[in-house]
Amino acid sequence: MNTRLESDSIGEKAVPAAAYYGVQSLRAKENFPITGRTLRGGFIRSLAQIKKAAALANHEAGTLDAPRMQAIVQACNEIIAGDLHDQFIVDPIQGGAGTSANMNANEVIANRAAELLGKQKGDYSAVHPNDHVNMAQSTNDVFPSAGKLTALELMIPLAQQLHALQNALAHKAEEFADVVKIGRTQLQDAVPETMGQTFSVFAHMIARDAKRLEQARRELCVLNLGGTAIGTGINTTEVYRARIVPILSQLTGYPLHTAEDLMDATQNLDGFVAVSGALKTCAVDLSKMCNDLRLLSSGPRAGLGELQLPAMQNGSSIMPGKVNPVIPEVVTQVCFAVIGNDATITMAAEAGQMELNAFEPVLLDRLYDSIEDLTHAAATLTANCILGIQADRKRCRALLEAGTGAATALCPYIGYRKAAALAKKALRTGTPLRKLAQEESGLSAEQLESILDPQNLVGSTHTELSGKSLAG
Amino acid sequence: MNTRLESDSIGEKAVPAAAYYGVQSLRAKENFPITGRTLRGGFIRSLAQIKKAAALANHEAGTLDAPRMQAIVQACNEIIAGDLHDQFIVDPIQGGAGTSANMNANEVIANRAAELLGKQKGDYSAVHPNDHVNMAQSTNDVFPSAGKLTALELMIPLAQQLHALQNALAHKAEEFADVVKIGRTQLQDAVPETMGQTFSVFAHMIARDAKRLEQARRELCVLNLGGTAIGTGINTTEVYRARIVPILSQLTGYPLHTAEDLMDATQNLDGFVAVSGALKTCAVDLSKMCNDLRLLSSGPRAGLGELQLPAMQNGSSIMPGKVNPVIPEVVTQVCFAVIGNDATITMAAEAGQMELNAFEPVLLDRLYDSIEDLTHAAATLTANCILGIQADRKRCRALLEAGTGAATALCPYIGYRKAAALAKKALRTGTPLRKLAQEESGLSAEQLESILDPQNLVGSTHTELSGKSLAG
Amino acid sequence: MNTRLESDSIGEKAVPAAAYYGVQSLRAKENFPITGRTLRGGFIRSLAQIKKAAALANHEAGTLDAPRMQAIVQACNEIIAGDLHDQFIVDPIQGGAGTSANMNANEVIANRAAELLGKQKGDYSAVHPNDHVNMAQSTNDVFPSAGKLTALELMIPLAQQLHALQNALAHKAEEFADVVKIGRTQLQDAVPETMGQTFSVFAHMIARDAKRLEQARRELCVLNLGGTAIGTGINTTEVYRARIVPILSQLTGYPLHTAEDLMDATQNLDGFVAVSGALKTCAVDLSKMCNDLRLLSSGPRAGLGELQLPAMQNGSSIMPGKVNPVIPEVVTQVCFAVIGNDATITMAAEAGQMELNAFEPVLLDRLYDSIEDLTHAAATLTANCILGIQADRKRCRALLEAGTGAATALCPYIGYRKAAALAKKALRTGTPLRKLAQEESGLSAEQLESILDPQNLVGSTHTELSGKSLAG
Amino acid sequence: MNTRLESDSIGEKAVPAAAYYGVQSLRAKENFPITGRTLRGGFIRSLAQIKKAAALANHEAGTLDAPRMQAIVQACNEIIAGDLHDQFIVDPIQGGAGTSANMNANEVIANRAAELLGKQKGDYSAVHPNDHVNMAQSTNDVFPSAGKLTALELMIPLAQQLHALQNALAHKAEEFADVVKIGRTQLQDAVPETMGQTFSVFAHMIARDAKRLEQARRELCVLNLGGTAIGTGINTTEVYRARIVPILSQLTGYPLHTAEDLMDATQNLDGFVAVSGALKTCAVDLSKMCNDLRLLSSGPRAGLGELQLPAMQNGSSIMPGKVNPVIPEVVTQVCFAVIGNDATITMAAEAGQMELNAFEPVLLDRLYDSIEDLTHAAATLTANCILGIQADRKRCRALLEAGTGAATALCPYIGYRKAAALAKKALRTGTPLRKLAQEESGLSAEQLESILDPQNLVGSTHTELSGKSLAG
Repeated sequence: MNTRLESDSIGEKAVPAAAYYGVQSLRAKENFPITGRTLRGGFIRSLAQIKKAAALANHEAGTLDAPRMQAIVQACNEIIAGDLHDQFIVDPIQGGAGTSANMNANEVIANRAAELLGKQKGDYSAVHPNDHVNMAQSTNDVFPSAGKLTALELMIPLAQQLHALQNALAHKAEEFADVVKIGRTQLQDAVPETMGQTFSVFAHMIARDAKRLEQARRELCVLNLGGTAIGTGINTTEVYRARIVPILSQLTGYPLHTAEDLMDATQNLDGFVAVSGALKTCAVDLSKMCNDLRLLSSGPRAGLGELQLPAMQNGSSIMPGKVNPVIPEVVTQVCFAVIGNDATITMAAEAGQMELNAFEPVLLDRLYDSIEDLTHAAATLTANCILGIQADRKRCRALLEAGTGAATALCPYIGYRKAAALAKKALRTGTPLRKLAQEESGLSAEQLESILDPQNLVGSTHTELSGKSLAG
Repeated sequence: MNTRLESDSIGEKAVPAAAYYGVQSLRAKENFPITGRTLRGGFIRSLAQIKKAAALANHEAGTLDAPRMQAIVQACNEIIAGDLHDQFIVDPIQGGAGTSANMNANEVIANRAAELLGKQKGDYSAVHPNDHVNMAQSTNDVFPSAGKLTALELMIPLAQQLHALQNALAHKAEEFADVVKIGRTQLQDAVPETMGQTFSVFAHMIARDAKRLEQARRELCVLNLGGTAIGTGINTTEVYRARIVPILSQLTGYPLHTAEDLMDATQNLDGFVAVSGALKTCAVDLSKMCNDLRLLSSGPRAGLGELQLPAMQNGSSIMPGKVNPVIPEVVTQVCFAVIGNDATITMAAEAGQMELNAFEPVLLDRLYDSIEDLTHAAATLTANCILGIQADRKRCRALLEAGTGAATALCPYIGYRKAAALAKKALRTGTPLRKLAQEESGLSAEQLESILDPQNLVGSTHTELSGKSLAG
Repeated sequence: MNTRLESDSIGEKAVPAAAYYGVQSLRAKENFPITGRTLRGGFIRSLAQIKKAAALANHEAGTLDAPRMQAIVQACNEIIAGDLHDQFIVDPIQGGAGTSANMNANEVIANRAAELLGKQKGDYSAVHPNDHVNMAQSTNDVFPSAGKLTALELMIPLAQQLHALQNALAHKAEEFADVVKIGRTQLQDAVPETMGQTFSVFAHMIARDAKRLEQARRELCVLNLGGTAIGTGINTTEVYRARIVPILSQLTGYPLHTAEDLMDATQNLDGFVAVSGALKTCAVDLSKMCNDLRLLSSGPRAGLGELQLPAMQNGSSIMPGKVNPVIPEVVTQVCFAVIGNDATITMAAEAGQMELNAFEPVLLDRLYDSIEDLTHAAATLTANCILGIQADRKRCRALLEAGTGAATALCPYIGYRKAAALAKKALRTGTPLRKLAQEESGLSAEQLESILDPQNLVGSTHTELSGKSLAG
Repeated sequence: MNTRLESDSIGEKAVPAAAYYGVQSLRAKENFPITGRTLRGGFIRSLAQIKKAAALANHEAGTLDAPRMQAIVQACNEIIAGDLHDQFIVDPIQGGAGTSANMNANEVIANRAAELLGKQKGDYSAVHPNDHVNMAQSTNDVFPSAGKLTALELMIPLAQQLHALQNALAHKAEEFADVVKIGRTQLQDAVPETMGQTFSVFAHMIARDAKRLEQARRELCVLNLGGTAIGTGINTTEVYRARIVPILSQLTGYPLHTAEDLMDATQNLDGFVAVSGALKTCAVDLSKMCNDLRLLSSGPRAGLGELQLPAMQNGSSIMPGKVNPVIPEVVTQVCFAVIGNDATITMAAEAGQMELNAFEPVLLDRLYDSIEDLTHAAATLTANCILGIQADRKRCRALLEAGTGAATALCPYIGYRKAAALAKKALRTGTPLRKLAQEESGLSAEQLESILDPQNLVGSTHTELSGKSLAG
């Protein structure tokens, strides 16, 4: 392999001649052989957006001349368009608080810009990674800011998928609005409801999660660019500090603004913890819903069997004809992963020391995993499960009628204790509750007809009691 | 011991004759001998507030006559005032989704109300725990609502303590505004800052946490009262449903409102998860700050020694004269507890099944622990640590001057590579950076005077660079 | 209140005249008003055991004379017997790495010993808390050692309760050995098994957990007594170092031994993390089992209904006749608490710095909670649930026969694809699988009789296939 | 693209004609587009090992003829050798409890075996994925067993790296055996120790972790092969059940054995939780050590500066000459990831229901991440940090002499109170402790010489006290 020699504080090192990255990227690759993965495309694009905005701002400030600025901007544009991503060789989990990721960007952009200006790769005389590409910046403001831009981008498809999921659930709520079924508390038979209500609850829940995520997302719009090393803004100009975030906001379309306290925004990662917390809360809800879907579709013969999930694949390598709730199962697993990621993110944020948190790389890596995996999970849940769910109306009706939950409705008329005696006798003897109530409750057939009508029991608009209550 | 016989679905059981609680409370006490603790006073008061509001609403609805209503309200008032708390005998960690806590309240109130109406304890003919005290309610709307009221109450002192902490930190920020010191990233010497900035960051961080908690707190104002067993509102009246939350809002002073979807609000506990998430985020920040306080006050001779924390107690049983950062240490421990509680709360919320979550008792118990312990930790942190902190100005200055962080400020003038060479030589030879720069940087003494002036390096308003930059 | 004046490094302070504790305990109580709880009885006794052993060892070493030794031993004996526990006033969550707990013990013992020697409380001339009671000790070896002794003691009843639970499960396994039922994988109908096998699995699982805990428990027998401040053994004698652990081993009956590396044993808390990990693993298993118990007893009419758990209390405040699985529910909640505690313990152990871990108090507090709550949960699970469980044989048989899981047994004879077609047709048409197989499988009635006999399908000893398999 | 039509229970589907995988793999790929990753090579090899062992065992049992057996074995050998891995297309996080991974293996092997027997891909007449490749197996015994084999394999390099790390630490312990330094408890100056002791502690700690992992690893040698669907062994032969695990043990070289209770081993994943717990405990220790390394090397001028870590890369993009502890930083991040993975693994294991745990795929994925990342972290820690660490002897000595920790050694002679007064005066006045002690302690210069000699204070063998102690 052809190589060129580069040097840094540690000494000289051979770099592949064709490489756009430089000595610092290469050292980092060797120092951090952890996951075997490299930086995500979205993160690489975010770095390029920031470098581009910085070049523009520095040019406005008069500290970067036009040719250099144009070359840097052009190099960044290429990266934003998806080129040169294979030149980003560092592991996402890295020491150095992201310096290696930042320098990987600085080196690739410097070499590409130099090339555009007619220089050889490795000749940093025209465009220097630190002095020009990283001008007025530090890893400590670039890396967290790129981290936020990336999360902002990743959260858009998540919001879309949650919205689609909510719509699918709401659609099913309408479809099943008239499917009366038994409710269950603590897995025990309770009072009636409709299958439509079940799905309406799911839809409301997901809507609430989406709203929480939208709210948490705002924390990510606060950047510390202009703060450089520790937030004091050393080596920046007034113009740069005033312009960098507005320019970046314009380039990306996000409503970004500069942190009130740049030092605070440099050393504290609680905004990411808040976002992860909202993702975790969403995971809790999704997992609960998927658990319900699995319970309600359990069977087909020896389970609850009130729902039928679409069959997506053979269920078993040994048991013929078996169909399993594979989509809810994979969603729940993603939820567990999100909850575990939250633990990692929490510890990483807590471990910050004084003017910087060196543990941000793992925080970002797990945060992006959480967002992306949740997005994919929501997508397959909607497409491959929710939209095809069917309710077994007959089964719902049968289970409802077998139960004694309706005895609850008798309480206001005959009291809890007497209603309990009736319910227990019905269960013990197998006599339907309605029949028993006719014989023993002292209520007329007409009254019972109305009181025990499932249609009357499933909504809050129906249970209007007459003055003939216990206290009457 | 004198006893009376009571009975429930399980059978007869002797209850102490003097007890206001009844058979169901007693069975629960025996079934759940887990922590040895009983319900918190705040939770007992919340239950009584709800029972009182329900009696008033039922009376308005015409389903509860005045004498019963008045007796129930009077009993509740006594409990709210702090009486009869020893009659609440159930363990906070209990099966049954809180039924035992709710029935403990129903029984105590029924017996006390009966007594007020001239009956014997155990005679439920006038006021029945289920039919009258629990009228139009279910554990499944009472327990989560009491859970929210209690959390709302507990979060008031937390907000106050965080506010006091923020003020104390801001006060210190002013006091230390002129203490120039070295900044540290990754525990390595970096560029200058002031001790005032350090505390200003802390103050901003705490303010942000307080705001997040305030926002999360709103989730607790949404109640499912009126939903009864599963949220369908079975056994309620229209009047009751319309009035219960407004009355309770008036009684407690909180801006409560009824959930849009009562079934959703009955089965899903994500609102609590969101609150715990905000508490956890606050714990992350507090722990980071306390870690910094311990680092900055490390020594007194062989550490950083830039801060002096007030000595609160002998530091060691064997090492004489030792003073330890005991207050930050206890705060960090509380933070770890809050983070662990969040894991419990997350799992409990995830485990809900269909129309109910049976695991709410442990969720509430840990949530209250988190809020209260954090309140106490913040209080002792402010009073016993922050307010008495002193900065060692001499030490700060000495460490700053020993360092080479100021080399950073040379980069815009002589480039990163040359600045690095100077910094390394200064470290290797022990020659002060300023002296070396005078000899080797090519910059004039006047320029260096200005560039390296620490006062100029600590704030973003000073670092305005002239046009004489690298790209010039 | 009568007071006496005491002083420490901080200054003078009034202590209640009647108090056995002294100024340092009182300051600690004021510095750490976190949980409102005080040290557990078991931990107080462990401290007293160590102080007693230390007095004996120092006496043997010739550094503590007989009268002082005897007075200290007598004071310790009283505490071990349960006296003076109200004099231990410090919060279990405390800064200072346990110094306050250790000094609380030193002060109480010194004052009681002084009293026995005819002195006034507060007069430390004869027996000094540091110089005599704490002789050759440091908080840093006393506190972790007391922590281990306490855990060793608490784990005995846990082992007993797990043993009792295992026995109860094994007993039920025998009782239900002939109850054939359908197995379920992924909540979907699968192949047959017996209810006895279900409980046998539970019993094996608990036995494994008990074994893991027993193994982890050994980590607690390694003490760092003799290491004093940081493990170097400063201020100890050779005789003391040789004798302290053997004496303590004899006093307590535990097979204690001295750590190979006293510094390691002083600063690292991984042994506790390992114990908590074993507790967590046990919690995972217990929660899974309780979840199964709730699923299998779901109903009574609209659930699986294969098991009947003993009714322990009224299930609902509004739904008459409802019986809920309250015992499994409380156990699962304890399991969630144990898992959350493990998170706290992990963070506390990770946070150690250099020669000491200052976060041990919260670690111990949560570890003890985990052990005790798990002990109580196991006890109520055995007594109030497992022993009274009944199987609904009729229901088990009916669900088994409704299913098509037995189609699996046809695979070796007719292949997976054909068996799948039969199973799906049976489900679609409602025709029993056996009938369909007779008509369409090509197997003789006799063959089918044998192949599909549930008794033949539930155990691995029966499924011997003849040479007539697919590959034949 | 050329395709062939395949069908399963869901219907027909076009599969690339050249593909060795079949319809079920393809459906799974579409159903679970979660991480974008595919199964690890190690897991693919483990599946092939099991399929090979099963073919051999079935052949011995007489249920699989020689040609089929040989073709299957040959196909498996190719996979074990690293071929065909690109045909494993399913996502590691998948629903269906691993059925898709198992069927992917069954399909690839069946098609390759068919090819070897002269058939076209997609023609399953000679070798059927279910009937022949999966003969006597179920996903439910194959998947967990492959999971264990893979973990067993991955843990070998981890053990090697921990061993190498321990050796490197022990080597440094020797190298630094004579570097006397100050000890620190709670970050405050304490009594003396040597830098060699510091590293010796690290070495002991890592040795203990390695031992725990070795012990936990044994849990992975217990397989449920032979249990098939739920552990009852349906569709297996006696010969197969007796031979499958011994054959696999011979093929792999691991001391595998069959679980005592196959149903237990099928449904419960606590063995994996135990392994993850041991990994987590190791992570706690590693992170603590890395934190210490960062603290001890903090500076170079304004920190502790007792250690110098090898410089591995430029430390900062803006601060010239900065060297950061990048290797310990990346290790700690991996530790946080391992701890988060443990949370995921815990939840996945807890979520099992009845005869199966459907959440094992995410459990395995995170377990393997933990093992591999920890292996890589340990490797870079040893090679790029520990081996090159240097101690700053001059700095260690200077900080030791500046401190007053040696006052502790005076306690046995002059009492804690008097020693404390001396220490405080030394700190306040700046007078060296030794000088002050000569003037005020009443001890002779000769005595002090011996008592305060650091060499005497750092090891437990030297501190033998004469009879002249306080109690004398």
